[in-house]
Amino acid sequence: MFDILFLGTGASVPSRDYALPAVLVRSGPDTVLFDCGEGTQRQIMVSPFSFMKLGGIFITHLHGDHFYGLPGLIQTMGMMGRKDPLIVRGPEGTVSALETMLSVCPGEIGFELDVADMSPGDEVSVGTLKVSAFATEHGIPSQGYVLKEPDVRGKVDAAKAESAGITGKDFSVLEEGGTVNGVSMEDICEPVRRGKSLAYTGDTRPCATLTEAVRGVDVLIHEATYTESERDHAERFFHSTAADAASAAKECGCSSLFLVHISNRYKDREVCLKEAAAIFPETYVPVDLALYKTTKKGIKSV
Amino acid sequence: MFDILFLGTGASVPSRDYALPAVLVRSGPDTVLFDCGEGTQRQIMVSPFSFMKLGGIFITHLHGDHFYGLPGLIQTMGMMGRKDPLIVRGPEGTVSALETMLSVCPGEIGFELDVADMSPGDEVSVGTLKVSAFATEHGIPSQGYVLKEPDVRGKVDAAKAESAGITGKDFSVLEEGGTVNGVSMEDICEPVRRGKSLAYTGDTRPCATLTEAVRGVDVLIHEATYTESERDHAERFFHSTAADAASAAKECGCSSLFLVHISNRYKDREVCLKEAAAIFPETYVPVDLALYKTTKKGIKSV
Repeated sequence: MFDILFLGTGASVPSRDYALPAVLVRSGPDTVLFDCGEGTQRQIMVSPFSFMKLGGIFITHLHGDHFYGLPGLIQTMGMMGRKDPLIVRGPEGTVSALETMLSVCPGEIGFELDVADMSPGDEVSVGTLKVSAFATEHGIPSQGYVLKEPDVRGKVDAAKAESAGITGKDFSVLEEGGTVNGVSMEDICEPVRRGKSLAYTGDTRPCATLTEAVRGVDVLIHEATYTESERDHAERFFHSTAADAASAAKECGCSSLFLVHISNRYKDREVCLKEAAAIFPETYVPVDLALYKTTKKGIKSV
Repeated sequence: MFDILFLGTGASVPSRDYALPAVLVRSGPDTVLFDCGEGTQRQIMVSPFSFMKLGGIFITHLHGDHFYGLPGLIQTMGMMGRKDPLIVRGPEGTVSALETMLSVCPGEIGFELDVADMSPGDEVSVGTLKVSAFATEHGIPSQGYVLKEPDVRGKVDAAKAESAGITGKDFSVLEEGGTVNGVSMEDICEPVRRGKSLAYTGDTRPCATLTEAVRGVDVLIHEATYTESERDHAERFFHSTAADAASAAKECGCSSLFLVHISNRYKDREVCLKEAAAIFPETYVPVDLALYKTTKKGIKSV
């Protein structure tokens, strides 16, 4: 189950109402941030979340609106006494770009910064979560991410345990991976509950690598810079329309779709929602600082 | 006369209430920005001002909280179609730092960016205004700025003109700097109205170069990171207290003092105001987005 906090839902240029791209996702004890536009640190400050608990930051591409908030956020964490290590990943060039920007204002950060470039197909662990990168198409090195929660073992089925003659201290043997009476833990448990998954695309035009990676993912957070009436702009600048995002969610069998990175030209975002929902009904167009939770019954706005 | 818009009055680390350092000053047709902390572009967007009309940006030093908003602001101006040239000045290292940060996200900006390092004592014109730099002491290359409005010639004194026999077309001769009947324009005009001046210190401990440069300046915008009870912090980190700022304003004969760059430890800034006002009564402690105007009668909060 995810808590999804939309810190900035604007595109390219901020506005009075919309900050630059950044989405925070919490699952159990672990929190990650996707993209870090200028102003992200302050958006987190005015939210109910703490950036001190961030385990990983994943940058989709090195355009300033997705990236210029990163050095300030890192330096602020340091000044506020962070000690926990922080994972930072992005496409080719991320290490160099971040080092360059931090070097402008040199100083001891005070915690371990685990920064590395990451290629499509690579996977990294952030606490209990696995985050893998997939290739997108935005005219420069770019990638989206799929975040997966761990699978959770089902509860012990008391009747099965009893009929297999498993009692008392036998369980500690099974817990350690052993067998008793030829029976293993999974034989007496309810089925594994599959961890939920979430994908964040960053900026991209529709592409096969995206739909391949997102297939079967539960929650899709997709850029939708334009609507179909500006398809020429979308194609020219390697972006997607709301309809493109909805088509991807439908094709991939997702449960829900959030549209982000929406151009300032859409003063009323209802047009984006309508275009997508006609193709994929379970679509949401969050405003800045909107918090959603995934539940067994679906998406809940908090 | 100045319009002074305090975009960010916080220090080092932003908070829910206070953005990072940036102060916009407008005088007649000309507008300049002092410092450009992360998030400045959006602070301007939520204010009544336009960053498209900025003629110059002056950075006091290259700590991130004073500087990390600059590349994003420049790129946004470009994306929004700015064509007018923009002057950017800062201490030694500014050209290199800005080029470095912009190079992370390369692209055509679309207007002339006149960036240069500036040394204490240097002066630059921004439209009708003159901006000169003075040395400060912050442990790294740092400087404050004095902004001067042009002097304005007094009105023609009709009685003087008549008694000197100046009539009709004689005035065009005088306007061009000539004399008629041995009389020049200034002989028949009321006294010159001296242009007002304003100083912005950036981060600094008290220093003689500051008081020397600020002497006789009308409006002083001075950092006041701490109060006297944290004097040890102020000394350790090359900062000033509210009392230091007030003492400088008093010593320099300023008309009014604004305290900025106030540590987040002061939840109630009244303590900073009281400390300064006990030394220099005409002290103001602005909140973010506060707009003040200088008038003949003094400072007016708008």
